[in-house]
Amino acid sequence: MKNRIKKQILQLLLEGKNSFYEILATQDAGIKEFWEILQELKDDKCIRIDKGKIILEEKKDKNYEILKSIKSSICKECNGTGYKLNDFFLEILKKYNNLTKNRPKAKAEYDQGFISPEGVIKRAAFIYERGDLWDNKIFIVGDDDLLSIALALTQLPKEIQVCDIDERIINFINEIAQKENLPIKAEILDVQDPLPKKFEKKFDIFVTDPVETIPGFTLFISRGVSSLKGVGGVGYFGLTTLEASRKKWYEIEERLLKMGFVITDIRRKFNIYPLVEVSFGAYEDKLPIYNLVKEKSDYNWYSSSFFRIEAVKEPEPLVKERMVIEEKVYKDEESLATPW
Amino acid sequence: MKNRIKKQILQLLLEGKNSFYEILATQDAGIKEFWEILQELKDDKCIRIDKGKIILEEKKDKNYEILKSIKSSICKECNGTGYKLNDFFLEILKKYNNLTKNRPKAKAEYDQGFISPEGVIKRAAFIYERGDLWDNKIFIVGDDDLLSIALALTQLPKEIQVCDIDERIINFINEIAQKENLPIKAEILDVQDPLPKKFEKKFDIFVTDPVETIPGFTLFISRGVSSLKGVGGVGYFGLTTLEASRKKWYEIEERLLKMGFVITDIRRKFNIYPLVEVSFGAYEDKLPIYNLVKEKSDYNWYSSSFFRIEAVKEPEPLVKERMVIEEKVYKDEESLATPW
Repeated sequence: MKNRIKKQILQLLLEGKNSFYEILATQDAGIKEFWEILQELKDDKCIRIDKGKIILEEKKDKNYEILKSIKSSICKECNGTGYKLNDFFLEILKKYNNLTKNRPKAKAEYDQGFISPEGVIKRAAFIYERGDLWDNKIFIVGDDDLLSIALALTQLPKEIQVCDIDERIINFINEIAQKENLPIKAEILDVQDPLPKKFEKKFDIFVTDPVETIPGFTLFISRGVSSLKGVGGVGYFGLTTLEASRKKWYEIEERLLKMGFVITDIRRKFNIYPLVEVSFGAYEDKLPIYNLVKEKSDYNWYSSSFFRIEAVKEPEPLVKERMVIEEKVYKDEESLATPW
Repeated sequence: MKNRIKKQILQLLLEGKNSFYEILATQDAGIKEFWEILQELKDDKCIRIDKGKIILEEKKDKNYEILKSIKSSICKECNGTGYKLNDFFLEILKKYNNLTKNRPKAKAEYDQGFISPEGVIKRAAFIYERGDLWDNKIFIVGDDDLLSIALALTQLPKEIQVCDIDERIINFINEIAQKENLPIKAEILDVQDPLPKKFEKKFDIFVTDPVETIPGFTLFISRGVSSLKGVGGVGYFGLTTLEASRKKWYEIEERLLKMGFVITDIRRKFNIYPLVEVSFGAYEDKLPIYNLVKEKSDYNWYSSSFFRIEAVKEPEPLVKERMVIEEKVYKDEESLATPW
């Protein structure tokens, strides 16, 4: 009868949750699909939506009593990530927070918004655990998360190269790198331009958080792929379920395989993007989703799955030349958390 | 200089671990690759291996002091799975343990060996969370884990169909189903035979733990795929890194996409196979790995990643007809934990 997203929503309502944003964050569909399913549930008189709350109307299915007794199984110690910062990484977190407290604020025009400091360090811990940190050359395509600083503070990477379009980010990272004597270089790069020769086939690892349209994703990942030395090269990136449907994921995965990569890890909701003023909280009312709910969020609802990919063949970027990011590269009909 | 598996091994040794089996379990390579890398490290006089222990010989890299201070970041509360059983599922675990205590022992001839009871229930919790349990028809291809009983105890699935080649498993499940009035049917099926018409396109979800050769994997998954109703159908399966290299994973992922599925989750080391007497502990000395180490294991080293796949197109099994499992379907040169 019901599709699984409906079931997830009903399960969460029966569990006792009612915040629109919390339920959005906890179910698996994109914002667009989620909103459409809510309308169906409303039309069926199953729920109503009122001031950012979803309220269950009909409560008669034979399984409802059981469903009410099932609470979340997400581990509270690690928020379901499976990782908890050990003393070494807690120390890195302290230094990172200290060094980045005057960081540039997120800019709507660059679609910025960054993951929590704990999330940044958890990425570092995961990359370390995989054997991908120590003695490696790392290329970061877009670094408003300031991951480069976290990675460099471990003293383990050989070299970190950051490219970003935002001069404020570049200057901020370079200043800290100089002051703290960290092996990071940062320079302005417009991802639309081909990767400069000096970065081609030079790195062991790349990290990026791509734009989530198919052409945008392909462009960002291609720049990372171009930077890798060869077979065994590794990429890390975030991908949401909120702005990328399963159909889009399918196309993305096809492209990853086509570029010569196996997907070794997909960790759902590994990184949270807190809605703080310094991040995309500053322009929340410019997001299309705000126009749907008409309420500011009461829950840190934006998160991404963390992917790890590894080249089993010679890595082959799908985009090598200049590629212009038009509106359709930057946004599609699923981009409901990307500012206009 | 070093590949990442070497780095992982050295990191673990510097952290203070020394059990061959624990280090095998914690790094990312297959048994074959792991063993080959150990030989290289031995030839480089970097380590020695003695009675199931790996001992670090050379300790002079400039980063060694840092590496010694980094302990595991795996969350101890949930063993890195991200999931902790809530009261509802703890109750299911109790009932499951009680009902299955006289379960048939693992048989070497069927390559049996099963995941821990906690792991079985965590699978159930994860399937529930995805909205894949409630009101669904579930098909299980091979059930020596007795997952069917755990799922049915939640009272949420509409119907569970188990197929297995082992008559003891079939009888055991049917007896419990009858005694406990659970909506499970179990019948003998040789996965080599085509899926009986009555199971074709009838189910919402399938679960299996395939043989880890490429043809074996394709065969098991194809039977599951054939059972699904259509787009939106979901599959769950375990896949190890121990007997399946990244190259094999790549081919497997290609085949999953070809069958119309997107990979939505890959949770590394989600399920542990405890080496107890009732499971494959009974025939440990028949595993090829034993011939390498020549020591019985002191650590529950066998684990698998948990995959979730979802059909975004009409699911299309790669194998439809009868396919005979010869030696090469059942084992390949990576199968070092499959009994001869």
